[in-house]
Amino acid sequence: MAKAADKYFETDPWKIVEDGFDPAYAMTAESVFSLGNEYMGVRGYFEEGYGREHLLGSYFNGVYDRKKTETQGYKGIVQESEFMVNSVDWLYLRLEADGEVLDLAVSDFEDFHRELDLRSGLLTRQFIWKTKSGRIELNFERLISMVHNAESAQRVSIRSLDYEGTVRVKTGLDFDTVHESDKKLWDCSPGDADNGYCHIVGITRHTDMKVGSFCLIRGSLTETADAIPVTEDKKAVMLYSLNFTSGSEATMEKTVINQTPLAGDLTDPADRLGKMTFDSMLEENRSWWKEVWLKSDIEIRGDEENQQGIRFCIFQMFQTYHGAVKGTNIGAKGLTGEAYNGNAFWDTETYCLPFFLFHDRVAARNLLYFRYATLDEARKRAKSLDCEGAFYPIATISGRECCNLWQHASLQLQASTAVAYGIRCYETITGDREFLYDHGLEMLTEISRMLATRGDYNRDHTSYGYYCVMGPDEFQMMVNNNCYTNYMGRFALDYTLDSLKRVREEAPEVYKRVVDKTGLKEEELIDWQEKSEAMYIPFDEATGLYEQHEGFFRLPHIDVDEIPTADFPLYHHWSYDRIYRNDMIKQPDVLMFLLLFNSSFTEDIIRRNYEYYEPLCIHESSLSPSVHSILAEQIGKEDEAYDFFRFATRMDLDNYNRNSGEGLHTTSIAAAWMNIVYGFGGLRSDGELISFNPHIPSKWEGYSFRVVYKDEVICVNVDKKRASFHTLGGKSIDVIIGKEKVTLNNEDHYYDL
Amino acid sequence: MAKAADKYFETDPWKIVEDGFDPAYAMTAESVFSLGNEYMGVRGYFEEGYGREHLLGSYFNGVYDRKKTETQGYKGIVQESEFMVNSVDWLYLRLEADGEVLDLAVSDFEDFHRELDLRSGLLTRQFIWKTKSGRIELNFERLISMVHNAESAQRVSIRSLDYEGTVRVKTGLDFDTVHESDKKLWDCSPGDADNGYCHIVGITRHTDMKVGSFCLIRGSLTETADAIPVTEDKKAVMLYSLNFTSGSEATMEKTVINQTPLAGDLTDPADRLGKMTFDSMLEENRSWWKEVWLKSDIEIRGDEENQQGIRFCIFQMFQTYHGAVKGTNIGAKGLTGEAYNGNAFWDTETYCLPFFLFHDRVAARNLLYFRYATLDEARKRAKSLDCEGAFYPIATISGRECCNLWQHASLQLQASTAVAYGIRCYETITGDREFLYDHGLEMLTEISRMLATRGDYNRDHTSYGYYCVMGPDEFQMMVNNNCYTNYMGRFALDYTLDSLKRVREEAPEVYKRVVDKTGLKEEELIDWQEKSEAMYIPFDEATGLYEQHEGFFRLPHIDVDEIPTADFPLYHHWSYDRIYRNDMIKQPDVLMFLLLFNSSFTEDIIRRNYEYYEPLCIHESSLSPSVHSILAEQIGKEDEAYDFFRFATRMDLDNYNRNSGEGLHTTSIAAAWMNIVYGFGGLRSDGELISFNPHIPSKWEGYSFRVVYKDEVICVNVDKKRASFHTLGGKSIDVIIGKEKVTLNNEDHYYDL
Repeated sequence: MAKAADKYFETDPWKIVEDGFDPAYAMTAESVFSLGNEYMGVRGYFEEGYGREHLLGSYFNGVYDRKKTETQGYKGIVQESEFMVNSVDWLYLRLEADGEVLDLAVSDFEDFHRELDLRSGLLTRQFIWKTKSGRIELNFERLISMVHNAESAQRVSIRSLDYEGTVRVKTGLDFDTVHESDKKLWDCSPGDADNGYCHIVGITRHTDMKVGSFCLIRGSLTETADAIPVTEDKKAVMLYSLNFTSGSEATMEKTVINQTPLAGDLTDPADRLGKMTFDSMLEENRSWWKEVWLKSDIEIRGDEENQQGIRFCIFQMFQTYHGAVKGTNIGAKGLTGEAYNGNAFWDTETYCLPFFLFHDRVAARNLLYFRYATLDEARKRAKSLDCEGAFYPIATISGRECCNLWQHASLQLQASTAVAYGIRCYETITGDREFLYDHGLEMLTEISRMLATRGDYNRDHTSYGYYCVMGPDEFQMMVNNNCYTNYMGRFALDYTLDSLKRVREEAPEVYKRVVDKTGLKEEELIDWQEKSEAMYIPFDEATGLYEQHEGFFRLPHIDVDEIPTADFPLYHHWSYDRIYRNDMIKQPDVLMFLLLFNSSFTEDIIRRNYEYYEPLCIHESSLSPSVHSILAEQIGKEDEAYDFFRFATRMDLDNYNRNSGEGLHTTSIAAAWMNIVYGFGGLRSDGELISFNPHIPSKWEGYSFRVVYKDEVICVNVDKKRASFHTLGGKSIDVIIGKEKVTLNNEDHYYDL
Repeated sequence: MAKAADKYFETDPWKIVEDGFDPAYAMTAESVFSLGNEYMGVRGYFEEGYGREHLLGSYFNGVYDRKKTETQGYKGIVQESEFMVNSVDWLYLRLEADGEVLDLAVSDFEDFHRELDLRSGLLTRQFIWKTKSGRIELNFERLISMVHNAESAQRVSIRSLDYEGTVRVKTGLDFDTVHESDKKLWDCSPGDADNGYCHIVGITRHTDMKVGSFCLIRGSLTETADAIPVTEDKKAVMLYSLNFTSGSEATMEKTVINQTPLAGDLTDPADRLGKMTFDSMLEENRSWWKEVWLKSDIEIRGDEENQQGIRFCIFQMFQTYHGAVKGTNIGAKGLTGEAYNGNAFWDTETYCLPFFLFHDRVAARNLLYFRYATLDEARKRAKSLDCEGAFYPIATISGRECCNLWQHASLQLQASTAVAYGIRCYETITGDREFLYDHGLEMLTEISRMLATRGDYNRDHTSYGYYCVMGPDEFQMMVNNNCYTNYMGRFALDYTLDSLKRVREEAPEVYKRVVDKTGLKEEELIDWQEKSEAMYIPFDEATGLYEQHEGFFRLPHIDVDEIPTADFPLYHHWSYDRIYRNDMIKQPDVLMFLLLFNSSFTEDIIRRNYEYYEPLCIHESSLSPSVHSILAEQIGKEDEAYDFFRFATRMDLDNYNRNSGEGLHTTSIAAAWMNIVYGFGGLRSDGELISFNPHIPSKWEGYSFRVVYKDEVICVNVDKKRASFHTLGGKSIDVIIGKEKVTLNNEDHYYDL
């Protein structure tokens, strides 16, 4: 773990603050200052334009285009992939004074200050622009509504300190955005701008998706200035010219509505825009976030940096997803960048789902629903891989497989087993059976079908398992009987069989519907049972070690600490095949199922496997340190746990992987939350009841967190000596604390550390 | 082996005959009627043009272009590949009569007859063209000189049976050829045609290779006809118009010279063209082939089909390669098509080299020399794969790796070990040390360096081997300790160490030169010795079975006979990953080294392994049946041996793989020769002396073959009861026959079967 913080932002418990601007951090700051509301997201780019490296990113969830992939033409290898497409720049603005167009890459300026308020989602930026003849103070504000999906707003104040002359402001909507450096991907209707009301429609080239963008420009600038519509290709903009004298001031407020296919029915935008105001939207956002923080805040005492870090994580998680729009998923970079093409991975069910399960059951349910909505695509994918049932994609936006690396897309089964795991988590943690009845059982049936046809019995028919697979650890490419894959496969078969049995008894009409719909046969149940029982789980009794895959223990050894730092990331510096030829691992694999089914394993087994596998791991996945941290904490390696933890909360704020400029590590953000709640708080949710086993890092004075469980908020407060638990609403809830079953209520229950 | 003959050509001992024309066989016939002389090749296309599916292919050895490959951008993955480019159509001809342009796709014709004479390389075609008003008898002849690389000739006779009117003949040189359906890849100087002398220069777009084409058109047609030069893009052509009356006749003879970068210094083409005549070139060819057949003929009595088949194979082998041009190699399709891009594979050293070692030592030496000429490219390739030394390409024209499937290019080591094997074969069979001294030792040193850095010790350091490799069997993609790879790796290390030791003693100045040039260190010798000794060869003492790779014996079993015929070829019908998930194999792997090092194994071991592996093999490589046939014969499975044999000699004549239209299976042709000489003749050449152990298929009356060994021709004649051996020139040669050492001379030595 040769990762080091690259600290740039000021520390503050509730804000992200940038004091002074360093162009070297421009891309990172753009990512960090991203705003979003699940429906849409916008990076923290300078709306006035910027002449150096930047990524003007404005994205809508579920709005994607398609491209041919450069690949090998065999069956089951993806030939086309989909990517979240950079969309309309609704913040578009150009400022001209003294014949100079403002551009912080070249303009003279001072007193730059930018901050993001985590309690409202308001992003503000101020600085003084020094033109040839005078100084102008500028204040930029923007927000995206957390209450009304399609709505956002921008406000700019211009005040002359001693500048005398004309200021020209061009602003409106711009579809002439760039995707991946040079591709322009929108066909547009001619833009229309009239009296501050602008609108334009963009259509994606290959997927024919329509985005209608509308804005209304108001404020003192528009009332006093010369206003003319400007005709430019793919834009709908107004140009305002105004004479300033020393001390004079003008404000521009732009309210915006963006209609995408996921918007649902919207009211007449022109009418609605007139009713929106920046201030009222800001107030709505403040109330919305207040509710969220009430249920979801984590407070850390005695560690300001991690306090800020974890709140930033929680803030970004809700910005990316909170169940506002049915059918969306969580891309690896959320709505903050184009890396990974906006695709969602198995991280959704494995890392992100627990966060929502403990905060908002509806959001969790909607997230899982994405997999039901895309079940037919998973069925088609299974067919193209010569399997029956459903094979969920490794990387997707619309449900179709978008990963054109066949060695990942064809060999990784963990997206499918993660869906089964997610269905079970939803059922056991929420106690809600409806999802299982309405959607889950059908999905489980198809997943089990895939698992029963993708695997094979070994030559002498004594064991069943998966051949030519890549487990979660992507540094062992094409192996047989990967322990994680087999373990999860067995779980999914068992859970399906168990669910079918229960539903058959409890709700025969549901069972019948699923059987009718899927054509499930009795023989299949027998087949699944046999395969589950025969599932090969490579385990060495003598050492207590699970073998990552058949033969792993005999692989050539490499001392990962001896690899020169300059070799990282290995994908860029090592011959591709060399990465796979030894016992080095990229991310947890055995340790992953030891975490997911934690209560099934003794501490001793966890310790043995942790001590074997951790030294082999280079943590090239951003999710890896948190998993290790949680398990290290469990087996009493507190310093190690804290060491792994420190990457998680400030991964992007301190740019640990040196690539936060491409976008935030959104799913890693979820892992940061798990790191505290599961790691230090010792929450476990894979048993009958949830349990807590809190510890406290020695560097902290105390910390507290809240989880929503059985429609009640459980408040946990931990200090150096003891932890206290109570329910916020006073409802009685059974949980396990330490090893003891406890009924929580509004009185503090104490537990000595 | 669900392969069936698709018989089309007439059977004849010395000719390939097509009586009547069936368009369904047009492509296959084009391949079968290919002419070549190593320097160049031309498919048997209709020179007058043809409006249905055809491949007008005219190729020059070593003339290639380059293209970007569609691939994944990791280190060591090929980003550009090279392909033999379709070149000038020097047979270009258009015939017009009665306002109709001759095209056998639409024209009316009868009495079509085409034949290729294996004793001269003359290709002739006759038919009667029925125009609206009369009949014209046409006779086309072509040949490529076997004596002068760059030279070829065409002759056409036109005789009116009852046609009265003008015949227009347009002929010359045409660079406007099509590569891979639609790509035109030549930039040309303006063509020039004057008084029958045409010339034009074409340059490849990306590799800047120049081909100068020259021809002289003579004959009665040119003497009597109106002759005018025609200006057309990328062509240099003449147009002749002549009035025919019933019974009148005219002949056109075109002599051609094509200069490529491999041509060496040529005399003035205009002058030389004037001296060439079709008849004298034909005579030279006849003499040349007479010499070849004297040393290389195989006679089969009582089996006309295989008699024709094997002579066709020998003929095509010499057409493709006979050591005429230093630095050429043998593409998978020779010079007969564009499939496999004209690339050469490890087949060169493994299948083709023995053929030349037993016919023409200089040709064999030149063939091996290709690998020395491209050693620097192999060094670069090793570097890109993070290895030291030299890594020979899986597929190449110029020495650079051209295979853009990383799973083959990065994981297959057999091209490199085959080069080492080839060097040894050359040394032991010819007894000539010069190649080893001049080139071989340096190559061996670099190959061993690669072998010592590409492999690894296992975790407990008890064995050395190769991880993440693909052996010869391409249906086991990414495995550890492939038995073939390890076996060949050990051989190459041992042979290098042994050669270095010998040369150090015998020729210290050579040793010093190699050490100076390669920077070889003493520690490396120790390292190689240790690695060779530690090399892991998976072998089960109890069963006598070599395990194809670690874990192979436990793989899921698939009964290859149960696979529906419609599923073949599996690459087109099965999900890509599915191919690799079981114990099915595509081609011999363990059996391959049992053949290459045959004298190191007992018959019992060979039988056990044959009986285990053969039923797992689907023979999707055209080379597979011959290897199985040779071993089956050795262990007394004579019917099985004959069954596998029948695909080899007539693979292309009977289009067994249904893809002969793309080009001939040139390296499989070499395997057909091995199949008879090693298989039925029982030749073995991997011991100290060569040995024979002849058998005769029950369907044959008798057969005879000849091999050149120690500069003498050994004649072997086998009939139902006994075999006889003698030397053609009377020189005494020690060989082993059966199990006995025998000194052969010009007296027949008899051996009872």
